[in-house]
Amino acid sequence: MSKKNKLRIIPLGGLGEVGKNMMAYEFAGDIIVVDAGIMFPDNDMLGVDYIIPDFEYLLKRKDRVRGLIITHGHEDHIGAIQHFISQINVPIYATPLTRGLIEAKLFRNNSQHKAQFKTVQAGESSNIGPFKVEYFHVSHSIPDAVSLAITTPAGLIIHMSDFKFDHTPVDGWPTDFAKLAEFAARGVDLLLSDSTNAERPGWTPSEKIIGPAFDKVFTEAKGRIIVATFASLISRVQQVADAALKSGRKMAIAGPSMVDNIKVARKLKYLEIPDDLIVPVEQALNMQEHKVVIMCTGSQGEPSSIVGRLSAGTNRQFDLKPNDTVVLSSHPIPGNEEGISKTINRILRRGANVIDDQVAPIHVSGHAAQEEQKLLINLVRPKHFMPIHGELRMLKRHAQLAKEVGVEEENIIVAENGQVVELIGNKIQLGERIPGGYIFVEGDSIGDIDHDIMKERGQLARSGILLIDISLDKQTGKLLHDPEILTRGFVSPDEAETLLPEVRKRVLQAVNGGGMSSEKDIINTIKSYLHQETKRRPMVFVTLSKA
Amino acid sequence: MSKKNKLRIIPLGGLGEVGKNMMAYEFAGDIIVVDAGIMFPDNDMLGVDYIIPDFEYLLKRKDRVRGLIITHGHEDHIGAIQHFISQINVPIYATPLTRGLIEAKLFRNNSQHKAQFKTVQAGESSNIGPFKVEYFHVSHSIPDAVSLAITTPAGLIIHMSDFKFDHTPVDGWPTDFAKLAEFAARGVDLLLSDSTNAERPGWTPSEKIIGPAFDKVFTEAKGRIIVATFASLISRVQQVADAALKSGRKMAIAGPSMVDNIKVARKLKYLEIPDDLIVPVEQALNMQEHKVVIMCTGSQGEPSSIVGRLSAGTNRQFDLKPNDTVVLSSHPIPGNEEGISKTINRILRRGANVIDDQVAPIHVSGHAAQEEQKLLINLVRPKHFMPIHGELRMLKRHAQLAKEVGVEEENIIVAENGQVVELIGNKIQLGERIPGGYIFVEGDSIGDIDHDIMKERGQLARSGILLIDISLDKQTGKLLHDPEILTRGFVSPDEAETLLPEVRKRVLQAVNGGGMSSEKDIINTIKSYLHQETKRRPMVFVTLSKA
Repeated sequence: MSKKNKLRIIPLGGLGEVGKNMMAYEFAGDIIVVDAGIMFPDNDMLGVDYIIPDFEYLLKRKDRVRGLIITHGHEDHIGAIQHFISQINVPIYATPLTRGLIEAKLFRNNSQHKAQFKTVQAGESSNIGPFKVEYFHVSHSIPDAVSLAITTPAGLIIHMSDFKFDHTPVDGWPTDFAKLAEFAARGVDLLLSDSTNAERPGWTPSEKIIGPAFDKVFTEAKGRIIVATFASLISRVQQVADAALKSGRKMAIAGPSMVDNIKVARKLKYLEIPDDLIVPVEQALNMQEHKVVIMCTGSQGEPSSIVGRLSAGTNRQFDLKPNDTVVLSSHPIPGNEEGISKTINRILRRGANVIDDQVAPIHVSGHAAQEEQKLLINLVRPKHFMPIHGELRMLKRHAQLAKEVGVEEENIIVAENGQVVELIGNKIQLGERIPGGYIFVEGDSIGDIDHDIMKERGQLARSGILLIDISLDKQTGKLLHDPEILTRGFVSPDEAETLLPEVRKRVLQAVNGGGMSSEKDIINTIKSYLHQETKRRPMVFVTLSKA
Repeated sequence: MSKKNKLRIIPLGGLGEVGKNMMAYEFAGDIIVVDAGIMFPDNDMLGVDYIIPDFEYLLKRKDRVRGLIITHGHEDHIGAIQHFISQINVPIYATPLTRGLIEAKLFRNNSQHKAQFKTVQAGESSNIGPFKVEYFHVSHSIPDAVSLAITTPAGLIIHMSDFKFDHTPVDGWPTDFAKLAEFAARGVDLLLSDSTNAERPGWTPSEKIIGPAFDKVFTEAKGRIIVATFASLISRVQQVADAALKSGRKMAIAGPSMVDNIKVARKLKYLEIPDDLIVPVEQALNMQEHKVVIMCTGSQGEPSSIVGRLSAGTNRQFDLKPNDTVVLSSHPIPGNEEGISKTINRILRRGANVIDDQVAPIHVSGHAAQEEQKLLINLVRPKHFMPIHGELRMLKRHAQLAKEVGVEEENIIVAENGQVVELIGNKIQLGERIPGGYIFVEGDSIGDIDHDIMKERGQLARSGILLIDISLDKQTGKLLHDPEILTRGFVSPDEAETLLPEVRKRVLQAVNGGGMSSEKDIINTIKSYLHQETKRRPMVFVTLSKA
């Protein structure tokens, strides 16, 4: 088999979740990229704002990158576009709503002028270098989502991004089963598929079940309703609007990203909301409480979101009232459970009511569960299978499901980010490893914050710091003034009162004890004294000046 | 109603979970205390080892504290006993296994000499001051657990600590329904009950279902089995031993706390494990792989536990092998999900297999779910109800369940830690607020680390630190040497190379710019420069010596 027929499949970054935020396909040097999203940091990634994929591999080959294809308008698929196009400015292929949401986001970051778009529709296709990319509709928790059939000289690849098999989705447009069957008839060489819910048995419930649950809440709530969800969960906005209309409430939208996204979706007719249903927040705050629903962000308990601020009593525009009902219309993202639970307790402490997805079916997952994943594989009947969009544990489970429904074990490949996979002559195999990690974004810094810095932050945070400033006479080696000692994050004022004089004494002993002590000596002396006294290990810094 | 008949019920600490780790009952000055446990810190409590309840209220009345009653031997009920008795050394009332586990723990902390025990049995009672305390058996995930019926001059109180209504528990000893019915016949004035699972519908499955699940794993696994659970989950140890016996595997126990606890439980006959089933770890490591099961700690992904170290490849005694099956026999404690998921991914990356409670029923909760909670209330038919052992969200849900099964709304009281509740003359009401928070333990420090220090640690961790040491000539105000600059957790070496010379330049300008700059001026100058350049805000420290 000639080397020319080798397709390289490259999952690029995402925090643990393989290929979630960016994937690349490379054939004979030509490259297309699928999605450019961000992830939010783990709890131990101190100070990080967000995370983007490491696409160094693409930067080194930027002249060969032919296009960026975006499957749908969620943050974890579009959030890194501004970083991507500022370095690799290729055409962006997206459906109308996805394009609109990207544009709104780029506009907020003042990067809109950089983007060149090619608007595509489900059912259409693009020829991009040696790749023919066919877009087909999938249902997900946002309208206008597509997945991809990529015809390459190495075979037909199906790239299933986020999807579910919802027969009654909010927009009435289910996943395109006929297309999937058509691809199967053509013969699919490789299926890549979303593993998010590979550990969840059964079939993800339809978005439809949310309607009655919202209706119940909207009818029963005595006061205002505040519905929190993700700014890009456009389908949920439609459902809230429908329930508001039915229950005679007006709808206000708080928060710039949600306002922008809803504006885009309404303009493009992906949201059907009568004009007179929507009122400005200021107006809603002056209306009768049972006539109002306010939509905002913060369903994950983010302290800086509107719900986060409401729970803490620090929201500027309005406060929670005892009669309010706060609906958290999302499921905790792993790692956020603790923060969400604290937020709920704080809201309850303010006397408001909280409804989350444990109490009522006001959220369903946007991702296929095991039975849907199995159906997909049986529909598509791929020769090879590669699970994507999940941590290793989910990929392994998804691989097992594929085996259970009949994909040959040697035709299933599990790869992590940065692990190149090669499809060549009817065989799938691991290729080389390339940089496939992730990059921390913090303020203006992209990639400067690394794991070493994170480790230092962990050390600083664990027991705080102690600084000692010593000035000595160059000639005599005697102290020019009393050592100055300062601590942060180490001792309380009470404890400092007894501990710091002893530290000072030991510094004086070290300095005056004959033979000039080095900074390092003093640091070691003080460190071991502090550990002996407190069993804690702050970072100790000494500045020793000789004048 | 005379003031003399007032019973004060005081939930004292626990991190969010009301009364979980310590409760007090006070009547006419006499006090009994129920449980003295620890909690583990939230993800944002940087550097904290563990947390104990704030029992300042009791310290101020230590002469009136008559006894400490322990309901069962789990860490969150016994872990703070060493701290408690070192300050309030009263008799400890506990059943034989609970006492044994406490003694083992005190011995490890070298505090065993301080404890005075009164061993009690389910079915017995103690007269402690004005309180008659009857112990009755409840099933939980540890043998020999009891709950309490406390007869006071203000009425009969039922204190349901951790329990479930398991009809087929591992030790064959279900919750004492007859006793509960007997109390109901006597007339229960107040029921306090475990709210842990108040958000979980249905009935918690019996421990019995774990047996077949273990049997399946033990038979199917080709290599070694490593079962991780809590060191005090004694019932689970019995189930592992049973499965080992059936499948012809020998059992080794790794980790001092687990070894100690199993020794105690076997000696007291709460564990039935044949002598020849147990082998030392060293021996197990040299046996055929399919003949071995190793029990250890680390089911919550704790980095310093044996499973945590195995996943990271840093365990000293042995390493994971590709054929190993790691069974995580517990459910994630809220806040630990992220760490557990990372641990699972690391284990899989080493080629071993992982079974957690999502994949197979190898764990069940030890706490009653909604149907059991309702049955309890209907069995006991209390006049008043107070949910305990849960965060506010669970307490509110439990209160709602009580209302649903017929407790009058005005007879239900929800209180948080430090909120005194008074039962007086057939009425329940909120009393005053007292210190009822929690205390951070870190190294030798108990209570010195407070929220201010935690806030400073958060600041240190968020963007790191930058130190500048400046020495000036006292007379001329000129620099005696070049400013020394040091950073931690702020910039990478690359970024430092361009940024720090600019910082130095600005320090020189500030110092030489006529008019001696103060430390504060220099700090502000540098801070705003750094923010402008990096959009980050490290803590900046300047030591300015004049010699």
